[in-house]
Amino acid sequence: MELEFLRWLRGRLPPHPQLRVPPGDDAAVLAHTPGSDCVITSDLLMDGVHFELAECGPRAAGYKSLAVNLSDLAAMAARPVAAIVSIALPQADAQKLAVELYEGLLPLADRFGVTIAGGDTNCWDGPLVINIAALGETTEHGPLLRSGARPGDQILVTGELGGSILGKHLHFAPRVEEALLLNSRYRLHAGMDISDGLSLDLSRLAAESRCGAVIELAAVPVSPAAQQLAGSGADERSAWEHALADGEDFELLLAAPPEEAERIVREQPLSIPLTRIGEFVAEAGLWRVDERGRREPLPPRGYEHGAAG
Amino acid sequence: MELEFLRWLRGRLPPHPQLRVPPGDDAAVLAHTPGSDCVITSDLLMDGVHFELAECGPRAAGYKSLAVNLSDLAAMAARPVAAIVSIALPQADAQKLAVELYEGLLPLADRFGVTIAGGDTNCWDGPLVINIAALGETTEHGPLLRSGARPGDQILVTGELGGSILGKHLHFAPRVEEALLLNSRYRLHAGMDISDGLSLDLSRLAAESRCGAVIELAAVPVSPAAQQLAGSGADERSAWEHALADGEDFELLLAAPPEEAERIVREQPLSIPLTRIGEFVAEAGLWRVDERGRREPLPPRGYEHGAAG
Repeated sequence: MELEFLRWLRGRLPPHPQLRVPPGDDAAVLAHTPGSDCVITSDLLMDGVHFELAECGPRAAGYKSLAVNLSDLAAMAARPVAAIVSIALPQADAQKLAVELYEGLLPLADRFGVTIAGGDTNCWDGPLVINIAALGETTEHGPLLRSGARPGDQILVTGELGGSILGKHLHFAPRVEEALLLNSRYRLHAGMDISDGLSLDLSRLAAESRCGAVIELAAVPVSPAAQQLAGSGADERSAWEHALADGEDFELLLAAPPEEAERIVREQPLSIPLTRIGEFVAEAGLWRVDERGRREPLPPRGYEHGAAG
Repeated sequence: MELEFLRWLRGRLPPHPQLRVPPGDDAAVLAHTPGSDCVITSDLLMDGVHFELAECGPRAAGYKSLAVNLSDLAAMAARPVAAIVSIALPQADAQKLAVELYEGLLPLADRFGVTIAGGDTNCWDGPLVINIAALGETTEHGPLLRSGARPGDQILVTGELGGSILGKHLHFAPRVEEALLLNSRYRLHAGMDISDGLSLDLSRLAAESRCGAVIELAAVPVSPAAQQLAGSGADERSAWEHALADGEDFELLLAAPPEEAERIVREQPLSIPLTRIGEFVAEAGLWRVDERGRREPLPPRGYEHGAAG
């Protein structure tokens, strides 16, 4: 299959201003923007774990595989440059599957100016596995780290949270442009993407920043999907619990000093909502505060998948 | 498992002069050497395809997964900088397996100054899958491409070829330093690593360079392992056939103008042999010439795995 597929792929890939040596050699060569640093991330997605191929189809699997990586670059406020796509294909209809995967991810790559700088395509007797490694560059405003939040900083989130499993986890828009805009226009202290659940990811950001965090429950933007799940009777969790613990929101979680956070929320510079949901505190730990001001510890909950980086 | 494993991994990773943000954030940030280009490659290795975990053990699987990527960087005459390691682990003894994989690859990373800049570690019900993406940088001498060979250029190879399956494919030394030295000291026109078999890879290099190639059979450095395979009675192929078609030699295949090739072979600047095995010709195709000067077409043979880049 390889030559025919490679020819198709080479013909399908648009030129990219930074791609000096395209796929086809032993590695790709990319021009580097002077003054920037490289930002690099990688995610391995497996059929039956991160998607159900038989249900969602190969285009959605391809889309998601690239989107999770772009979300990681967004979390660093990095400009995406290139992606390397490695695929292990089940033997049956391997070439058709590979083409469909690419048809799912290529429009997303185009949209964010990401060049597909090669990869590795194999067949085997196992299920579909897709690894994408993404390369980005820092801007003049530097990378947005998890470690910069300070006590008194306000907690902001983009979009609405919870219930991603009803569909958003396959079709979400990585917050690349949003992160670049916010990082260039405002003074942010820290940020990450919410991939494993708000409470778990917030506890990680707070721990990296050596502080704690208090979530104001009533302020959390609960998605209609979270409300739908809570109302379905399928489980006993409330919509808030879904918003606090469901994985794969892929929204941005940000720390900004009070006056800056106020300005961001007032100006609403994005096409999606930006919401203040609480603040960072000196004492390590995670708490929730209800409408009556009662504060109690909030055990971090979410999806623990064993990420190493 | 994740926190304990992550702590172990973070403690195990030495600092690196270019690693600005280490694993643990959403992505790693690496300082870029001014004036160089990024070189990027990725390989996905699966249990049962690229190694047999039950036979070779996890350390060898980890070593090989990094080594094949370093060989790709060597093939570009790029200086290795970082690797991103993504792993899908079978559920049983997942953490022990992950630690052993890293113990297999970390000494190799250390040896070549490669920092492990993060990755993704998951468990599933499938076999072990390892993806490593490697990031390198071009030197002042530029990348070594497949496309620069010209008619009249001589064909050079490092080391000895064939029979890698008897052990070398798991324990080979990627020719990183050799490629950097040769690319800095001599005028090379083209190069790649021999990963899928000499005849197949040479036909690819010739095709990328829009020329053909003639191999002088008697000059090909046949490895003792290839001779052992040929003498074992296990198959009917000669030692030469093994040297021409066996995959995973991971030696360098180079094109140099005649006087430069002569100088390289005379000076023997490496600790491993450098051998002239033929020359590039204007007519597209691949030929072999025997001791009596008889020239006949040589059908490219090797391992076709469907590499996309």
